[in-house]
Amino acid sequence: MTIYKYKDTGLLRKLCSIHAPSGEESAMKDFLLAYISENQHRWKTRPEIIEGEDLHDCIMLRFGSPRTAVFAHMDSIGFTVRYHDQLVAIGGPDTDGPHLLVGEDPLGPVECCLRTTPEGHLFYDFPRAIETGTSLVYKCNFRVTKDYITSCYLDNRLGVYNALKLAETLEDGLIIFSTYEEHGGGSVPFLAKIMVEKYNVRQALISDITWITDGVVPGKGVVISLRDRNIPRKTYLQKILSAAVGSGLPHQLEVEGAGSSDGRELQQSPYAIDWCFIGAAEQNVHSPDEKVHRADIDSMIDMYKYLMKHL
Amino acid sequence: MTIYKYKDTGLLRKLCSIHAPSGEESAMKDFLLAYISENQHRWKTRPEIIEGEDLHDCIMLRFGSPRTAVFAHMDSIGFTVRYHDQLVAIGGPDTDGPHLLVGEDPLGPVECCLRTTPEGHLFYDFPRAIETGTSLVYKCNFRVTKDYITSCYLDNRLGVYNALKLAETLEDGLIIFSTYEEHGGGSVPFLAKIMVEKYNVRQALISDITWITDGVVPGKGVVISLRDRNIPRKTYLQKILSAAVGSGLPHQLEVEGAGSSDGRELQQSPYAIDWCFIGAAEQNVHSPDEKVHRADIDSMIDMYKYLMKHL
Amino acid sequence: MTIYKYKDTGLLRKLCSIHAPSGEESAMKDFLLAYISENQHRWKTRPEIIEGEDLHDCIMLRFGSPRTAVFAHMDSIGFTVRYHDQLVAIGGPDTDGPHLLVGEDPLGPVECCLRTTPEGHLFYDFPRAIETGTSLVYKCNFRVTKDYITSCYLDNRLGVYNALKLAETLEDGLIIFSTYEEHGGGSVPFLAKIMVEKYNVRQALISDITWITDGVVPGKGVVISLRDRNIPRKTYLQKILSAAVGSGLPHQLEVEGAGSSDGRELQQSPYAIDWCFIGAAEQNVHSPDEKVHRADIDSMIDMYKYLMKHL
Repeated sequence: MTIYKYKDTGLLRKLCSIHAPSGEESAMKDFLLAYISENQHRWKTRPEIIEGEDLHDCIMLRFGSPRTAVFAHMDSIGFTVRYHDQLVAIGGPDTDGPHLLVGEDPLGPVECCLRTTPEGHLFYDFPRAIETGTSLVYKCNFRVTKDYITSCYLDNRLGVYNALKLAETLEDGLIIFSTYEEHGGGSVPFLAKIMVEKYNVRQALISDITWITDGVVPGKGVVISLRDRNIPRKTYLQKILSAAVGSGLPHQLEVEGAGSSDGRELQQSPYAIDWCFIGAAEQNVHSPDEKVHRADIDSMIDMYKYLMKHL
Repeated sequence: MTIYKYKDTGLLRKLCSIHAPSGEESAMKDFLLAYISENQHRWKTRPEIIEGEDLHDCIMLRFGSPRTAVFAHMDSIGFTVRYHDQLVAIGGPDTDGPHLLVGEDPLGPVECCLRTTPEGHLFYDFPRAIETGTSLVYKCNFRVTKDYITSCYLDNRLGVYNALKLAETLEDGLIIFSTYEEHGGGSVPFLAKIMVEKYNVRQALISDITWITDGVVPGKGVVISLRDRNIPRKTYLQKILSAAVGSGLPHQLEVEGAGSSDGRELQQSPYAIDWCFIGAAEQNVHSPDEKVHRADIDSMIDMYKYLMKHL
Repeated sequence: MTIYKYKDTGLLRKLCSIHAPSGEESAMKDFLLAYISENQHRWKTRPEIIEGEDLHDCIMLRFGSPRTAVFAHMDSIGFTVRYHDQLVAIGGPDTDGPHLLVGEDPLGPVECCLRTTPEGHLFYDFPRAIETGTSLVYKCNFRVTKDYITSCYLDNRLGVYNALKLAETLEDGLIIFSTYEEHGGGSVPFLAKIMVEKYNVRQALISDITWITDGVVPGKGVVISLRDRNIPRKTYLQKILSAAVGSGLPHQLEVEGAGSSDGRELQQSPYAIDWCFIGAAEQNVHSPDEKVHRADIDSMIDMYKYLMKHL
């Protein structure tokens, strides 16, 4: 019987339940700053913490002399309340089903049901009007079985969890918690500026969650994405693949024509930055039931620990 | 009977009739520089005028010690003459109707009629060939009634007008006249660079025109857009909404999934800039008959005057 | 009988056969650095060569005191091997036909056939599995007739060839070989930064290949594109058109609503940069049989030589 290595599902459960759709990442920022403050004394290296109004709700952690940066986006998909009983999507949420949504407006907590018309228009069912501009997210139903974790927002709270596990032993590297990834981006440009101009780091790994496909199966290891809508530079991919093989850790390769990540904005930044998306794959993408195999979580964390040493 | 506060419709009429589609904003630049030169002696604060080849056809005005910048784009939608009698759209003009178009080529002034095929191909009807590359815009038919102003290009000459009215009493702030908003953008990136690096301003208001929808009605006040295709940061929205309520001025809230503005490029710039779109709503969007309620113009100008003091 | 001026089709043939789809431009970089090293002693002005990890696989050449930069992208369209026998497009390749594709993986050279399903899914036919992540490009079949050159990848190896011919006599200017143009861009932002911040150059010409249309015919001269999906600034277009007329060289004008180039990223950069796309037009765009009239190649090179002196 498999014993999984990273067992503190309580932290992951907590992360998955934080209300932080794109534009409202401050709750994630607050949680992470408190978590770092409480836990860094147990970490091998104490990081410099870079945050403040110049970074909006983003956080950067510098460990030692960084050569590579890990990006993990904090925001999630969700919905904005319009008027009448209309909703507008934040990012690309799954709208196929009467999903439970939660949020809060000045009149108090909200728990309502998503309703989608055949034409794709989105509404909420709730006994009273919800204030215009209120954001709603999936209600978190976090489930752990022997081999799987199922929850909303494993994309990308699992990427954040991976970064926090990595932080425990990291000696040299940047960990960057970004915002707005699910909805148009906008924080990576200023994060990249600091990363290059202040820390002279030009290599990045994107700690994010990808998809189970006909070439990627659950339990076979973390996925190294050779491309999605964007194409990383071949020389960097080869460096990573060679290290991944050297690690002896299980991993899978993906090649996609669609999908995107914080890597896109690194690619388009005014700096020559190499990037690669590496993350566990999930089923039921962008739904309340995102499902990841626990072996792939172990593999993801171990691969990041290895790569951050060897790149 | 309502008496409207901002009565010089002559200035707005003039602004609406200037030929300046995206890429050809120099006529707007010339007009504004002349207007500023003639009128600034009457303004409460004399601004520093920043313009020149490093800003292409854009203009920045610095008043006092700015904390917030107002962006008003000068360009309009229109059409480029191809060859034969074909037209190509500049931005997203309304093409449903035999709209009158005007322009000028080396052979003289042009006034012709737009013809749209059922497949959406665009042509002009004119007795002679118009030179390839000539731009055409709607012929301006400016109409004032008791409660409404109707004209082409209220989007965004009304946003420019708002900025000029604001300039009369502004003490601290940046006013920025941008280009290319209707067609792919491209000036906000260098304007944002100056705004942040030279003036250390990281708050912006987008002085632009939005749409009448099933939640936004004419005459009920300026619209504060809580989101469109892009999502401003919640903490900034809350600051604005709290000030707006404090102002006692009439205003409406909008939540949209589509539409964009200069705010998009601020969001994606390599600086942590907060932005929010605030503007009157119009009917007959991007047509020769854009129509705005005069109470909403008053409300827009008064709201800008208030917010620029209180943000 | 027409005698064409630029006769060394051997160099162009060589350029067209180099395997360098977006993300794998290093072979082009190596070839160009070797070519420059071998040939620059014959050039009128010896350029400063700017390259290295800060530019990834891009190269900049500075001649004298530059006022204008020429951008030529080195990458090509192609295909990435997925798993099973699936392919994913790099850029927008023509997939209509059983085109021959070539590449190499650890098991050796690959020459296989493209197969497209009616739904547009892409596959390869080859006796063995090709390693995931391997890139394939069209097999080069370079054909010269009296008036035409036909080959894959004239877009944009002909733009590169044009830059190399220009280099022979250029006295003042930047020549910039960019990457990723066919697939999302990403190198122009850092190249523009160097171009403006280090060399103070704010004018650009895009040395790239456009399309034969109902207004652009083969053999009538290089095409000056007045717009595509993006719109250059009118004042710069007028400067170029006036110089082009002054040159006495044959040229044609294009106005398009679609298509894009390195000019798009210059437009969106945080610098006020003027740009214009000038290049020969081809038939059979993005196919193995791109076909350009030799008179248009001559006209393109001569026009660049003239404009780089007179802008």
